[in-house]
Parts: sequence; C-alpha cells; structure tokens
Amino acid sequence: MGVETYDIVIVGAGPVGLCLSTCLARWGYKVKHIDNRSEPTATGRADGIQPRSLDLLRNMGLKRKIMEWEPAKVYEVAFWDPSAKGIHRTGTWASCPKFIDARYPFTTLLHQGLIERTFIGDIEKHGGEVQRPWTITGFKNDGKDKKYPVEVNLAHVDGTMEETVRAKYLFSGEGARSFVRDQLGVKMVYKDPIAHVWGVMDGVVRTNFPDIKMKCTIHSDAGSIMIIPRENNMVRFYIQVASSTDKDWDPRKSTSAEEVQERAKQIFKPYSISWDRVEWYSVYPIGQGIAERYTLDERIFMGGDACHTHSPKAGQGMNTAFLDAVNFAWKIHHVESGWAPRSLLSTYESERKLIAESLLDFDARYAKLFSARIPSAGEVAGASSAKEMEGDNEFIKTFKASCEFTSGYGVAYKPNAINWGPEHAAQHRLILAYEHGTSQRTGRIMTPATVTRVVDANVVHLEQEIPLNGSYRLFIFAGSLSTSEKALKDLATHMSAPTSFFSTFSYEDLAQKDRYHERHNPHSAFLSLAIIFSAPRSAIHIDDPKQLPQPFSRYADHVYADDVWDQRVPEAKAAAHAKMGLDEEKGGVVVVRPDGYVGVVVGLEEGVGTGEALDMWFSGVTGRKLGGERAIL
Amino acid sequence: MGVETYDIVIVGAGPVGLCLSTCLARWGYKVKHIDNRSEPTATGRADGIQPRSLDLLRNMGLKRKIMEWEPAKVYEVAFWDPSAKGIHRTGTWASCPKFIDARYPFTTLLHQGLIERTFIGDIEKHGGEVQRPWTITGFKNDGKDKKYPVEVNLAHVDGTMEETVRAKYLFSGEGARSFVRDQLGVKMVYKDPIAHVWGVMDGVVRTNFPDIKMKCTIHSDAGSIMIIPRENNMVRFYIQVASSTDKDWDPRKSTSAEEVQERAKQIFKPYSISWDRVEWYSVYPIGQGIAERYTLDERIFMGGDACHTHSPKAGQGMNTAFLDAVNFAWKIHHVESGWAPRSLLSTYESERKLIAESLLDFDARYAKLFSARIPSAGEVAGASSAKEMEGDNEFIKTFKASCEFTSGYGVAYKPNAINWGPEHAAQHRLILAYEHGTSQRTGRIMTPATVTRVVDANVVHLEQEIPLNGSYRLFIFAGSLSTSEKALKDLATHMSAPTSFFSTFSYEDLAQKDRYHERHNPHSAFLSLAIIFSAPRSAIHIDDPKQLPQPFSRYADHVYADDVWDQRVPEAKAAAHAKMGLDEEKGGVVVVRPDGYVGVVVGLEEGVGTGEALDMWFSGVTGRKLGGERAIL
Repeated sequence: MGVETYDIVIVGAGPVGLCLSTCLARWGYKVKHIDNRSEPTATGRADGIQPRSLDLLRNMGLKRKIMEWEPAKVYEVAFWDPSAKGIHRTGTWASCPKFIDARYPFTTLLHQGLIERTFIGDIEKHGGEVQRPWTITGFKNDGKDKKYPVEVNLAHVDGTMEETVRAKYLFSGEGARSFVRDQLGVKMVYKDPIAHVWGVMDGVVRTNFPDIKMKCTIHSDAGSIMIIPRENNMVRFYIQVASSTDKDWDPRKSTSAEEVQERAKQIFKPYSISWDRVEWYSVYPIGQGIAERYTLDERIFMGGDACHTHSPKAGQGMNTAFLDAVNFAWKIHHVESGWAPRSLLSTYESERKLIAESLLDFDARYAKLFSARIPSAGEVAGASSAKEMEGDNEFIKTFKASCEFTSGYGVAYKPNAINWGPEHAAQHRLILAYEHGTSQRTGRIMTPATVTRVVDANVVHLEQEIPLNGSYRLFIFAGSLSTSEKALKDLATHMSAPTSFFSTFSYEDLAQKDRYHERHNPHSAFLSLAIIFSAPRSAIHIDDPKQLPQPFSRYADHVYADDVWDQRVPEAKAAAHAKMGLDEEKGGVVVVRPDGYVGVVVGLEEGVGTGEALDMWFSGVTGRKLGGERAIL
Repeated sequence: MGVETYDIVIVGAGPVGLCLSTCLARWGYKVKHIDNRSEPTATGRADGIQPRSLDLLRNMGLKRKIMEWEPAKVYEVAFWDPSAKGIHRTGTWASCPKFIDARYPFTTLLHQGLIERTFIGDIEKHGGEVQRPWTITGFKNDGKDKKYPVEVNLAHVDGTMEETVRAKYLFSGEGARSFVRDQLGVKMVYKDPIAHVWGVMDGVVRTNFPDIKMKCTIHSDAGSIMIIPRENNMVRFYIQVASSTDKDWDPRKSTSAEEVQERAKQIFKPYSISWDRVEWYSVYPIGQGIAERYTLDERIFMGGDACHTHSPKAGQGMNTAFLDAVNFAWKIHHVESGWAPRSLLSTYESERKLIAESLLDFDARYAKLFSARIPSAGEVAGASSAKEMEGDNEFIKTFKASCEFTSGYGVAYKPNAINWGPEHAAQHRLILAYEHGTSQRTGRIMTPATVTRVVDANVVHLEQEIPLNGSYRLFIFAGSLSTSEKALKDLATHMSAPTSFFSTFSYEDLAQKDRYHERHNPHSAFLSLAIIFSAPRSAIHIDDPKQLPQPFSRYADHVYADDVWDQRVPEAKAAAHAKMGLDEEKGGVVVVRPDGYVGVVVGLEEGVGTGEALDMWFSGVTGRKLGGERAIL
C-alpha cells in the first residue's frame, strides 16, 4: 500500500493557512491541514480586518459570520499630542477617506481567534478539517512520484504518532518561525536597520478619555501609545518599549503589565484610566523582515508571516496574509485544472513579494507620517476624489498613499502575464488602457458599483455578484440596448465558436450533466460572466433573444440594469458604466481575475474585434492558442 | 409544596408565541412555553417577512441570523395577463416603493421553520426553552393566588404526563384552532361572506418563464396563480381552487398536486414549467375571520392566528403576529415593572384588533386592486413622497395604502393613553402635532435616519441604536450646539429633579450597583435616551459638560452627529432633524414607545417647558404624578 496522497499539505492554521484551506476545500481539493497548537488562537495576535479584506470575506460568504461577533468598526483615527495640561486632540482622519471608493470604509476589529473559528467552521462545512496538534518534521521535493512530487513528514507534537504523506504542493503558513523556510535555507532580509520592542495589552478599561472607542495615536511627554478598540468593550494598547535608536537599546528589554499600565496612566493625563481586566499582555521585538524567496521550486511555497514581519501598528499582517492565500489559491487551481501553464505559479512570488516590500516601505513612511503634522479636516474632506489628491503637497500625497495602503486598496500588481500592460503579448486596438477609455487599472481591484439584478429586481453590489469561485469574471458592460445589440450578438457568436476563450474551457460533460440550477458556472468553471445594460430594469427582457443571445441567455441570473443613482457620479445615466470609465452607450468588457483584480479591459464593438481581443488576452493567460486562425501568440 | 409558578404560560411556538417568548426571556421573565408539535414547522406555512418586520427583527438582533439562510428578497411584483398567445407581462410594481421611507424596501421570503429556529436559538441563548410536544388541557383565572391568579393544566400530547402550574398571565398563540379561545367562548366574526379554498405548493421548478424569481400575479384564461420565490430555488404557488362566488361552491373542494401542476402548465403558456420536486402541498379553506375579543380579563390573552385569519396572498399573517407579540410584551413588562397602570393592558386589544380589522378590509381591497389596471411606471416613480401620492386619483390612493399596509408601515395606532392626540390628558403648548412642527405622527413608526455616532465615528441607523430592550426611547434632537446649549442644560436640570419622569424611574440600587459598561440603561430600565446634534462630529465633544451636561454625559455612547447627507432631504444641513420635521437649529424631542411607535413629540426650548411637557406626557403614560407641583393630571 502506498502512502496517502494529497493535493496540498498546509502547515499552520493562522490567517494565511486557513484562508488558503477554505478556498481549496470549496474548489474540491484534497487538503491535509495541520497546526501545532491544540486550539485556535485564544488571546492576542492580530485583530484588524481592512476594508479590502472585508470585501474578500464577503465574497467568500464569511462577512456575516464575522459581523455576528459584533466587532468594533474604526471609521476614524484620532491624534492626541502633548499640551500644557496633558494631552489634547489635534485632529482626526478618516481611516478610509471618501476619495477611496470602498464599499466598507472602516476597519473591522475582532480577535484573531474568532476570525480563525469563522474559517474553521467554513472548512468543516466543506468536509475539511485542521489536524491538531501536529507538526511538520521533514519534507522533500524528491519527485519520486511524478504526480505527487513532495514527501512530507508529519508528527503529533507529543511524538506519539507519525505520518508520511505525498502531495502536489506544500504550503507553509507557519508564521515568523517557519520550519519550512529554515529547512529551505531561505533568509529573511531585514530592510530597515531600526528595530523595535513593542508591548501590547488587550483588556477592558474604565476611563473618561473621550476617544477610547476610536483608533488613537497618543504622543505625550511620558511616551506614546496606540489604542485600538475591539469587540466586547475590549481595548488594545500598543506601547513602544524600546527602539534601536535608543541610547541603551536592548532587543531583549522587557517591562511588566503593571509598568505599562502605570505608563499609560501618565500618558493619559489629564484623563484617568484603570483596567477591569487584562486579557493578554506580551512584549516582543519586531524586525522589518522579508523572505528572500517565497518558493524555490514552485512546489513548496510560503506565505503570511513566514514571508514578512513588520510593525503591527498599521494592522496589515492578517490582511496581507489573506491576500497571499487567495493569490496563491487560484493560481494552483488554474494550473491543476489545466487552464494555465505552470509558469503562472511564478507570479505568486513576484506579485506578493512586491506587496510585502511596499508594506515595509510603507511602514517606515507611516511612522514618519505619524510624527508629522495632521492635515486639517478641510484638506482631507476637500480631497473627495483620488485625482484631486494628486497635487504637489507632499504630505497629502503620502497621506493618500497611506490611506490606500492601509485600506488594502493600494495593492497594485504590476503588468505581467495576467495583468495587461503595454508589453503584454496581447496587443489589440480594442484593449483599453487606463484613462484611455476606462478608469479601471489592471492589477487593481474593480471599482464597486450598485446595480439592479433583472431576474428578481434586487438591488445588488455588482462586484460581489460572482462569489470567490476560482473563475475569471467577465463583466460585460453592454451599453444601451439599442446601441450595442449587434455588438453583443457578434460577441456571442464569436464566443460560441469552438476555439474561443469561452468554448475551449467548457465542461467535457456539458451535454450529459444536469446543471439547471447552476447560476455561476453553467458552461465552465474557468469563467463566470455578468452582463450589465445601461437601461432601466423594466426595459430588459431576459427571455428576448435579441437582447440576450445564446450563450448569454444561460446567464440570466447575472443580467443587471445599470439604473441605480450613485452619489459619486451624480450626473451619470448609467452609474456603473460611468464608474468603470466606460462609454454609457457603447459599454466595454472588464475582465477580472479570480481574486478580484482587473486583468484587462476591452472595448465592445460590432464585428469580431472584441472577441479577438479577448481571445488574445486569454491566450496569454492560459498559454493556449485560442480563437483558431485569428489567434496571435 | 405549592405548584410551580411562572410570570406567563405561552401556548404555541409559532411566530406570535416565539416572538413574545423571545422578548420576555430577554427582559428576565420566567416563561413556561409549550407547543403541541414535536418539532418546529418542517414544511409549508408562512414565509414572508415584511420591511417593517425586518426592522423589528434587526432591533432584536435577529436579522443577521435570518439573512444567513439566504432568503429570497422581493423588491417588485410583476403582473401577467392573458393575451392572444398566452400570458404576457403588463407591468411591475415596487413592493415597497420609494415614497415609503423604508430601511429595507423589500419582502424577505424564508420558510417559517427556519424563522422559528432563529427565535428558538435566541430563546435558548437567554436560558429559555420550548417544551414539546405538550398541550394545554385546561385553565382558569380563579384568583386563588393573588400574585399568580391563573391556573393552567398542561399535558404531554401522548397523555403520559401532566402538570399544573400557576401564572400571572396565559397567552394563546395556538393558531386558528385555539383551545383557549374556544374555552373562553370567544367567537370568530367572519366579516366577509366570501370564502375561498386555496391550494398552495412549495417546490423547485424548471421554467423559461422570466419572472420566476419575482413575486407574480398571473391571470390567464385557464385560471390564476400567485408566485412567491424563496430560499434554495424554492418557489411557492398559490392557486385558488374554489370561491364562495362559484356556482358549485364547496368549501371542502379539493384537488391533487398533479391537477394543480397541470393547471399551472396551462396557465403558464406560452412558457413551459415542470417540477424537480414538491416540498409541500396543501389545500385549505380560508375564512376572513377576526376574534371578537383578544382578552376577557386582562390575564388570559390571545394573539396571532388565534385572533385573525385571512388570505395568505398579501403575506401578512406572520408579520401581524410579530407585531401582536411585541405590542403585548412591552405592555406586560411595564405593568409588571410598576411603570404603568394595569389599564395599559387594555390597549393591547384596542390597538391590535383595529389593525386586524384593517387587515381584513385591506385584504378585500387588495383583491380588487389585483383585478384592476396597473399604474404605469411613471405614475409610481413620479410619486416619490407620500404627500405627492395624496392626489384625487382613487387608484393611486388605494395603491399607496396597499403598499404602506403590505410593507408594515401602514400600521397606525389611534390616539389613546400612549399615543398622544388632541384628547390626551397631557396638553402643553410645546407638544407638537403632526405637520405643526414635526413630520412624526403618533402611533406610527419613527422615520429612519442615518447619523454618525460620536464616540466611535461609526455611521449608524439612528432608529436601530436603541435595541428592543423594553424601554421608552427619548430621541433628543438637540439642534445646533450654539442655539440649544441652554435648552439642553435646562432639560438636564429638569430631568435631574427627583420627581421628574427621568429620576422617578431610576434603579433603586443606582448608587450600589456597578453599571459602568451598561450603554443603554445606565440609570433606569424604564427609558433609554439618545442625543442628536445638528453639527459635524468633530465639533461635538462628549467630555465637554457645556455640550453634554449631567445626566446626558452618562449617555456618551448615544450621542450622534446629524452630519450624513440624505438623498431624501438633499438640501438639509442636518438630515435627521429635517426628516423628523424638526427645526435644524432648535431641535425637539421625539418620544418613542418600546415597540418603536412614536408616542409624542415635544419642542425643545429654554426654561422648564420641555421638561414640563415630558412630565405631563409620562404622567399620562405611567399613571404617576410626575414633576411635583408642576404636574397636571
């Protein structure tokens, strides 16, 4: 009897491992997931979910479960500085200002253990589990089995049991102390020579300080504190205990909870503060490190804190972990499904490492910003669009970048095989570049938009209509019914051709298997599609083949009326079209990657052009020759 | 040993019984709750939650749990009529049009069993339970125990166990066949001589009919159908099997599921339809009946279907039951807490019976409306406010009333001791009548408004900020900081007097018990209060005693900035003030009953007037002489 085989072995059930496991369990992969702790996180650790991550969690159907724990929501950050009589408030910032078009413009604060439980519940619902307390004791990509090239040795932490399995992939989500990373000999590179020792204390307090339910940065002559509110009257205090810039710098410097409370009392003057209880207290040194590599062989991967460690102040750790996981998940899904060449896997490191690097850079700038002057409410409120913020004012620029970064919307993947750019293999006159026919930027999230679903007249969030199902998303903004009727029909005809990007990836059992109730993937798991008309709902008839030719008619559940007024584009007749920067009459096609980032935008016109451009794009993405004679590769 | 005693015995765990039990369990009452079924509803029965009921469920913290079942949401109703080639769509209506200012302008469709499970989960969380399968075998208000005057005899349905208990109250939520009602000899009065036999079928269908996910009324030469979509691709069909207007009228007429399906196929032409499975099918006669009395002795009460039966088409049954329950719950809570005279209990029947009568009247009008012409989209869309709808057009009038009624916002309690009116004992020049200084109408729900919570800068729904905690709600719209500073201070001073409506109901152990983390009821369970300033959040300082004098400073968690723009009052500087019809500078006080209905509106001005008016009002409500020498009773 051979050893047990798995699609993947995931080590570590923190945010990155759990998010990865959740995706793969939903998409039908066989996962071995272990964690060396007996239970999910009981106290402490991360607690901030950024606006972009909340989008993602909603897309996974987990937002409601998260919200059921009644987390704190941070809409603003308050700044307190020293004055003659103690501290006083010098200003507040929106944590996700209006110039960012976020569906949820706030940070959600919830204990990491509750977030982990939400994921675990979902994994179990899909038949998976986390095996605890088990650890990894060895692994090698020995290729002895071509299909399952990686051998992984696992053991119960008490040493009483051992198990050896083979897998297609091994993923380390072990956190900062990664056995896998050590074994691979991958070094952490410490970018910034400045290191810090932080004290962090979670507890329930009593105080007359008016901003105790806000995120606050308090500078006083007695020291500095950052406050983060949480569920159940809990408050987190961050206090910097030591810095490598101190004269007596000692990375092992520690301090007791009582000392921290005493310091806090001094810092809080003239306000009083006391603790009902302390749930968790820890002191730890933080280095701003990044792993040299995320993978050496594209079989054994790492993500989350195993790849990047940084200051907790900006609340980015867990959020970066989620995005690492989803970025990795869909790529192995597409490679394993035969929809992409193995080279797609190399974009995991190139995309995510750059983000980690930006995060570290940002961390330094953020610290600087915190000691700088606060912009007035007028300056911030006046900057109602990202464009207006692009003035000369250096401070405002940094501020804007910071907000985008901390909200998660600053993530911008560079042009590569899956994010179109001027160097991409697909070059077609109908491919629309940023600010040339579209406001959508490749490598960035699609702008949110509210529309009316035709089939049931529900007012919905378009960007959430296709769940995180591992599929590419084709948002066909079809313009007005009269103007684009032929263009849509021509695209439908083009897509129906057997060599098209659409037909090529059809289910092999399309004719045999009953998929009547399948809304998102009736033809193929490779892509989902949505069609948005610039028309009132009552004018759209899903049973009219002139409006909705085959194969679009099969996507009747994903037909939308762009007839909901939007405050951001008050003059627009079709707000969703307008927000995408597309012509309201002619429309256009926005292709979104399975993780929500825009891949390419293509103009919609009569004839074969639109189909050609999409075939070219998907040829580049999938490594297939699509579109028959028309394909250029 | 004496018999076990309870505050209340509730018979029946359908919507009315469960909603009542949930409220009372939260407020600390000892409840004996029985149901003669072994399990919650497995199939069939009600499934529509109206917009107003969703407000209520959210106020109880149950909306998220309901939404987790992924119910269908009905935003529009489509009308189909016969044509030469079969049926064709003649129009659609919003099910809750824009002229109704609803937070959730849709009907939520979910199987009654899932709704029951949501309530049961909440009851269990609060330490209660439903005892099954037990039934009531007898009861009498013999007054043998003054505190627990009602004896109730209970038995296991299989007769193996019996139990006799005593209670302060007995409530029948038994449904149309009420043992309690029969025993009391209370008659059902059948208002409308026309009776109907309905066939109802829940199932999963396949069809090319484009509106299968909408609520539809289909008239064809082959008969009439109403379609209601539900969770999990389920669809409910209502087919009228017989009517007392038929020549061969037979209230026992039946028809098989297959016959109904065959009829549906004929009605659907030119569209096709078939069933994957039928979950539930039933044929039952419906009489439009109403109980003569809801209580005889104000100890033994009835509610829900035990008091009113009607056609299921308008989806009102469960919603009326919820409102019966909440209306009853807070009244016994206030009487038992000593905050109201026993005469308050008489308003349960007078308020709720009138609503049931309106429901029956409405049912008849609704039927008429369904056979009348459909208003054009222009007529409906053009009527953007309730006022504009008040034209001469009879149809539009009926339409407006119907929408208000079906959404639940048409519920209007008449002036009585707890809904101010010109005949009320409290008469004071500062009491504002509808359209004389306020847009709020007593006996109606407070208009929803979005504001910013000062303490954490969260953007919140004001009407939801005080949960269903059984307390009166004082919404103090405080106008602008400069204009109203003294008026607010004077009100605070007035309230601090020991004889005021505020101080009179303070906790007896106010000084002894630690309530630091109590947000809603720090001083008293009798009322909660919220203060809304017509000012930007950054201008409001909860630690400034000039802005927030004692006792208001203790309600810092309930201080709001009226600084969120609202599409309904686009010109307003302070949208919430504007929506209440209050002066944006001077403000006013809206007193809301524990069930969400406006009790009285009082102007806010310097001096003793505002406090006096509130004392007068609460004197009437509580039967106490409040305000010392100032009180007029």
